[in-house]
Amino acid sequence: MIVWHQGALRPLEAVRIDPTDRGLALADGLFETMKARDGRVLHLERHWARLAEGARLLGIPLPLDETGLAAAARELLLANGWARGDAAVRLTLTRGPAPRGLLPPERPTPTLVMTAFACPEPLPPARAVLVKGVRRNELSPASRIKSLAYLDQILALREALAAGGDEAILCNTQGRLACASAANLFLVIEDRIWTPALSEGALPGIARALLLERARAQGLLAVEGELPRHLLARAREAFTTNVLTGVRAIASVDGFLFPEPCPGPLTRRLAELLESA
Amino acid sequence: MIVWHQGALRPLEAVRIDPTDRGLALADGLFETMKARDGRVLHLERHWARLAEGARLLGIPLPLDETGLAAAARELLLANGWARGDAAVRLTLTRGPAPRGLLPPERPTPTLVMTAFACPEPLPPARAVLVKGVRRNELSPASRIKSLAYLDQILALREALAAGGDEAILCNTQGRLACASAANLFLVIEDRIWTPALSEGALPGIARALLLERARAQGLLAVEGELPRHLLARAREAFTTNVLTGVRAIASVDGFLFPEPCPGPLTRRLAELLESA
Repeated sequence: MIVWHQGALRPLEAVRIDPTDRGLALADGLFETMKARDGRVLHLERHWARLAEGARLLGIPLPLDETGLAAAARELLLANGWARGDAAVRLTLTRGPAPRGLLPPERPTPTLVMTAFACPEPLPPARAVLVKGVRRNELSPASRIKSLAYLDQILALREALAAGGDEAILCNTQGRLACASAANLFLVIEDRIWTPALSEGALPGIARALLLERARAQGLLAVEGELPRHLLARAREAFTTNVLTGVRAIASVDGFLFPEPCPGPLTRRLAELLESA
Repeated sequence: MIVWHQGALRPLEAVRIDPTDRGLALADGLFETMKARDGRVLHLERHWARLAEGARLLGIPLPLDETGLAAAARELLLANGWARGDAAVRLTLTRGPAPRGLLPPERPTPTLVMTAFACPEPLPPARAVLVKGVRRNELSPASRIKSLAYLDQILALREALAAGGDEAILCNTQGRLACASAANLFLVIEDRIWTPALSEGALPGIARALLLERARAQGLLAVEGELPRHLLARAREAFTTNVLTGVRAIASVDGFLFPEPCPGPLTRRLAELLESA
């Protein structure tokens, strides 16, 4: 496995992250997980925009620009034999090594590392669990950037697995629906597609944005809003979106099946819409 | 600088954290920052208990036991020339390297790394800022363990610095007082010492527990509870606690001074109580 690290391609074994790196020590950083096709990252400009917004919010200087990111990702994909077909790239940006303590250094030396890997296979319909033990914190700006602080999502997924499910649905601090473990959440109620608003703690997912745009362009009613938990009982279909795995139907929540056969008709249609170029 | 890593002492430059380590990728891990004196960690049993509780909650197997931790910390301190005097040890435990994705590996190979450093100097009284932009998520179990997910605390401290202060006071999702950026918060109101309860999003700080125990042993009234923000206006004194820097007086919040000269009489008394062996 060849890794892109601080401007150079190196074997994984030769890439050293310093134990004092603030990404490791304090989750002081960001990441992006990007789908690539035939050696090029898809929707690179959207990933770049989200990364740049996160870096601005955290005050981490970006060590490259959008063109540099495209070139680096391409080099990485080619070096790992992904010149053709689907693959994925994970980018991790941290504030870099620093002395102990919360106070960020005045002149950080950011760490930027990228790995390439096979694109995950499409997932079977999810058996979701409405998580009780942890809430998504929509009252932190970190809920709106793709930060390294993913522990709440891991706790949620662990709870779902322990309950016999394979995906978590998280509520925000107000008890309203927020997101899935590493994906955005959508419900189909009557003829509308609903998804939690960004202000509800939903990450601004790339697949989420694409799906909303494309659904609306088709004349479908797609609404971002405040979704009380009890709306789950009114949904005919439900699904998640993630840029790597696309649309994933949700078969059940806490064992209760949705009325439509899974995947439902609108879920299928939207999955195709998201797949289209 | 000599680092303890996976059971061995090595120069910092020779210690390599894998870029796929889940501690870096997802904040999937824990840490402890411990004070040492004359080559031995103080209150080791309390740090161990907190670490073990966090590891149990996250399902990360601990690669050593309490006795092993004491021995490793001692070796590390001696190797770095801290056989005498005050020093500090940071321990970081992660779930270790893993393939991409949120799902924890079934058989993790945890990463355990420890660094030693000089004990920070006592801090001058804090000019605190009551943070508006981020809330402490008491609705996550991660608020009750010392996890690597410290980004909310960094965002809070950055807001405080931008507002001209040098310490942050965070409220929880209900708008009640929770903690400082990397310390517990205490108020003196009439003759009582108040601190946010753990259920309010306060980290179970070692210095916090010691101070409460010692204050109570002296017959002082020390209460853990729900502290509405407006209590700040009723406080005669306020301070923070942290195991490395002890009691730190708070001079002001958002520019408003507390009535007592800073540090106030009870703050001084409690600082001495915490310092005593």
